[in-house]
Amino acid sequence: MSKAKYVSLAVIRRLPKYYRYLGELMNSDVDRISSVELGKQIGFTSSQIRQDLSCFGEFGQQGYGYNVADLYHEINCILGLSKQYNVVIIGAGNIGQAVANYHGFNKMGYSIAALFDKNPKVVGINIKDIEIRDIDTLDEYLINNEAHIGVICVPSNNAQDVCDILIRNNIKAIWNFAPIDLSAPDDITIENVHLADSLFILTYLSNTKLIG
Amino acid sequence: MSKAKYVSLAVIRRLPKYYRYLGELMNSDVDRISSVELGKQIGFTSSQIRQDLSCFGEFGQQGYGYNVADLYHEINCILGLSKQYNVVIIGAGNIGQAVANYHGFNKMGYSIAALFDKNPKVVGINIKDIEIRDIDTLDEYLINNEAHIGVICVPSNNAQDVCDILIRNNIKAIWNFAPIDLSAPDDITIENVHLADSLFILTYLSNTKLIG
Repeated sequence: MSKAKYVSLAVIRRLPKYYRYLGELMNSDVDRISSVELGKQIGFTSSQIRQDLSCFGEFGQQGYGYNVADLYHEINCILGLSKQYNVVIIGAGNIGQAVANYHGFNKMGYSIAALFDKNPKVVGINIKDIEIRDIDTLDEYLINNEAHIGVICVPSNNAQDVCDILIRNNIKAIWNFAPIDLSAPDDITIENVHLADSLFILTYLSNTKLIG
Repeated sequence: MSKAKYVSLAVIRRLPKYYRYLGELMNSDVDRISSVELGKQIGFTSSQIRQDLSCFGEFGQQGYGYNVADLYHEINCILGLSKQYNVVIIGAGNIGQAVANYHGFNKMGYSIAALFDKNPKVVGINIKDIEIRDIDTLDEYLINNEAHIGVICVPSNNAQDVCDILIRNNIKAIWNFAPIDLSAPDDITIENVHLADSLFILTYLSNTKLIG
């Protein structure tokens, strides 16, 4: 695993896909699979699969292929999913509530520890047995409670302020749904989900196909 | 615009970012900007900006830079946002409702035309004045109404069936939130938002930084 930090971002971005497909294979009671067959299902070449996985260690065996459950668990460990993470969500609007309610996050080791909003109409309401707290108490909460991941679901104009509060309270992982690029020091990881950008790309690509 | 179909996907994926930044500049009453200054703000080099934009036509002027409003409107047209799109959302759970309620989609030219779900407990309920319909009526709805974009927000095990219904009713653009890769003919555009994948990547990258 010490190799992991030298792995290219492109490979890392493919890891969850491997993990997803291996999970599906396990659910279908498939015990082992060749890199060729796995490649066919995922849509990668078998050599890409062998190359990607070799970044993290020695998996699979010539003539046998991959043991599905073993590889699934290895990737689970590589991704860091064998640990538990306390997640705080800031912004309990539609997206914040959708993330809080997202089926399966809990099962994957992510525990929604707290939800914050600035709207007095929703503060005090419970989402999944978690009370929505006043955003003014975020700083105090983070001083007194361990949180690993901050999810920013506030509008753009508040997102950087929220990001700054998370950073000064030692949160290193930020999942940002606000349609803005946040500033943060190099030791902070920010992963953006820019929904409008995604919809625009869909629009462009589908229009281009229609013209082309 | 006839050039557009030869543009690389990497360039296309940067377009919404340009659009977003130019929108912010307009909101800040900035009339014009040099490629160097725009690059500083976005985090691209000025030559990348000039190269990206040159894929779509001639923008900006030596010594003057870009007229912000003009470039914003050009990118709006390139992305296809000057048209109106009827959107149907299938799956009115958390994500489906979040998309239906997403602030600003309407302003951007996307009109939520219909919402479908199979849960009898939510069928008949209104979201943003749109009644949730029974998913069994999706086929009939699409035969009788023009829709341009289908948003799949159902669980994985139903997603391909929904995708097939959309395709046979001539929907060419599918925005997929189900954690599965859908099969579709080449003339269909599918844009995935795989939330769990995104969270896993955040987890991996933040852990790697902590170790590294």
